[in-house]
Amino acid sequence: MAKELGISISTVSRALSNHPSISDGTKKRVWQMAEQVNYQPNHLAAALRKGRSNLLGVMVPHIDGHFFSSVMHGIEKVASKAGFNVMICQSNEDVASERKNIETLMNAQVEGILVSLSRTTHDFKHFEKVRKREIPLVFFDRMLDGLNVSAVIIDDYQGAYQIMKHLLEQGNTRIAHFAGPQHLNIYKNRHQGYLDALRAYGIPYDENLVYYCDMKLEDGVEGMEKLLKLPVRPDAVFSSSDFSVVGAMQVLKSHQLRVPHDVALAGFSNETFTSLTEPRLTSVDQHCEQMGQTAVRLFLEMLDDHSGRFSPRRIVLQPEILIRESSVRPK
Amino acid sequence: MAKELGISISTVSRALSNHPSISDGTKKRVWQMAEQVNYQPNHLAAALRKGRSNLLGVMVPHIDGHFFSSVMHGIEKVASKAGFNVMICQSNEDVASERKNIETLMNAQVEGILVSLSRTTHDFKHFEKVRKREIPLVFFDRMLDGLNVSAVIIDDYQGAYQIMKHLLEQGNTRIAHFAGPQHLNIYKNRHQGYLDALRAYGIPYDENLVYYCDMKLEDGVEGMEKLLKLPVRPDAVFSSSDFSVVGAMQVLKSHQLRVPHDVALAGFSNETFTSLTEPRLTSVDQHCEQMGQTAVRLFLEMLDDHSGRFSPRRIVLQPEILIRESSVRPK
Repeated sequence: MAKELGISISTVSRALSNHPSISDGTKKRVWQMAEQVNYQPNHLAAALRKGRSNLLGVMVPHIDGHFFSSVMHGIEKVASKAGFNVMICQSNEDVASERKNIETLMNAQVEGILVSLSRTTHDFKHFEKVRKREIPLVFFDRMLDGLNVSAVIIDDYQGAYQIMKHLLEQGNTRIAHFAGPQHLNIYKNRHQGYLDALRAYGIPYDENLVYYCDMKLEDGVEGMEKLLKLPVRPDAVFSSSDFSVVGAMQVLKSHQLRVPHDVALAGFSNETFTSLTEPRLTSVDQHCEQMGQTAVRLFLEMLDDHSGRFSPRRIVLQPEILIRESSVRPK
Repeated sequence: MAKELGISISTVSRALSNHPSISDGTKKRVWQMAEQVNYQPNHLAAALRKGRSNLLGVMVPHIDGHFFSSVMHGIEKVASKAGFNVMICQSNEDVASERKNIETLMNAQVEGILVSLSRTTHDFKHFEKVRKREIPLVFFDRMLDGLNVSAVIIDDYQGAYQIMKHLLEQGNTRIAHFAGPQHLNIYKNRHQGYLDALRAYGIPYDENLVYYCDMKLEDGVEGMEKLLKLPVRPDAVFSSSDFSVVGAMQVLKSHQLRVPHDVALAGFSNETFTSLTEPRLTSVDQHCEQMGQTAVRLFLEMLDDHSGRFSPRRIVLQPEILIRESSVRPK
C-alpha cells in the first residue's frame, strides 16, 4: 500500500490510526486505498492467514445468578488451557439481541460459538449463517427441540423426576408445580418429570396446581398467592427454578405458614442462595462447571475435525438431587 | 483481488470461506493474494471505512454475583440505545488474563473499553496500547490510584463511614473489619472510612480487629473464627464484602451466637442474598445499574470528542446505606 501511494510504511500506519501528525489529504488517500484493498489490521490478517483468531464466543441469556456464571467458569477453564480467549454476549432473554450478538461474534472472527438460547427464541434461522460459514456451533442447557446440532444438556427430566419422587415419598399428595416456558427443552422436560412421577405414584393430575410463568422471584410470589387461594392448599411445591421458590417461601412466611411443616418446597438449579435461606432449599445441582467444560471440548472436537462431515453429538449430563430442610417432613 | 487473479468474485469469496467446491490450488492462490493485500472480511472493512464497529468491550474481574451483573445491565441498556453491541471478557481476578483480554478486545475492533480491574492488577502498562490507539477507555468501580483516566466510581469511603456511624450509634465499641486488597481503591477507601469513623467517635484503633483477606465466603469464615479466639470478642463486624459477612454469620450460628444480639453484622455491595439470609443483612447499595449507565455515557462523550484533547473525567456516585436486622440492636 505504501509503495502504491509513494509514501512510507510508517506514514500509512499512522494515517490508518488517525494520527494527528498526518495531513487530512494523506489520510484520505490512504483510507481510499485501504478500502480498495480491503485493508485490515495485522492481528486479524495473521489470524486469517493461520485461519486462527483463538477467540471463542459465548452467548448466554443473562449472566446473573449462579447457573450461567458457573458454566462460564467451566468454559473459561478449558478454553484458556486450549489457548482460547473467551468473549461473552448476553441476549437478555431477547431473540432480537440474540440475532445481533451472533453477527457481532462472527464479525469478531470467533472460531466457535457456544449458545444457550433466550426464552423468546422460537426458531433457528439466525444460526443458519453460522452453520454455512462452518463455524463450530455448540448449544448448552437451553436449545430447541428437533435440531440436529451439537449440544450439552442436563437430564432435566431425571432431575425433576427424582425431586418429585422425594416429595412423594415424604407423603405429599397435592404437589404444585411452577413451570417455565414450554418451548424450551429444559422447562418442558422438568414439567414432564413432574407429570410422570405423579402418574407413577398414582396421584391424579390437577391442572389447578400447575402455574406457568417466567420463573422469576416475583412469579413465585404470584404463583404461591394463587395456590393459597385454592379450596385445599397444596402440601408441596416443586418449582423449575430456585428464584420462584424463594418467592413462594416469602409468601408462606408472610402467611405464617411453616416450611416444610405446612408446605414443602423444592427448586431447581442450586443457586448460591439455596443454602443461605432458612430453611435451606432442596434443589437440583446441574454440574454447571462440567457443562461448560464439556461444551468447550465438543467445540474443540469439531474444530479438529477436518472431514467437513462432523456429525452433531449430544451429551447428556446427570444432575444431582440435593435434599435440604425445605422438603424434609419433620417426623 | 478477483481481477488480479483472473477469477470471478464469487470464486474468491468461496475460496476465502474455504468452500469445498473450490480446488485447493485456487484456494492457495487466493489466500496468498489475501495475505499480500491484507484482506479482511466485509464487515470489518466496512467498519473501518466508516471508522465504526459499533462494538463496545467490557472487562470485569468476574461475572458472578450481583454487583457486576447489575453494572452490565446498566451498560447494555445505554449501549444498546446508542446502537452498540456489548462484548464481555472476564479477567477472573488475574492480571495475565486481563492483558490477554485487552488484546482480544482491541483485535475485535471495539470502539471503546470499559474496565474494572482484577485484584491482582498493580500497574497500568497493558492499557498504554489502548491509550496510544486512542480507543476511549473508562474505568468503573475498581481502578488504580493516581491515574489520569476517566472513571466512574462509588464513594466507598462515605459508604463505609456511614455504615460505621450506624454501628457505633448502636452502641458497639469493638467493631472488627474484614478488609480487602489495599492497592485497589475500593477496599482502601472502605478501610479508611472504617478508621476515620472510629477516630470520630473516639474509639481507639485495635489492629487485632482488622482481618485482611480476599473477601470470599471462606475468608469470612476464617476471619470470624480468628476473631472469636480473641480474649474479648468483637461486638460487631463491618465487612467490605457481603460474601465474607455471610461466612461470618455461618460461623456465629455454629457457635450458637446470635446476630445481632451477640455480634452485629454489616456488609458491602447489597448482593441479592442479603435479603434472603436470616436475619437479613445490613449492606451498602452501590447503584450498580447507574454506574454502568454512567460509564457508557462517559465513553460516548469521549467518542464524540474530536478535539483529541479529551480530558479525563471522574464521576463519583453516592452509595446508599441499607440498614436491616443484622445490625440493629434489639431494645
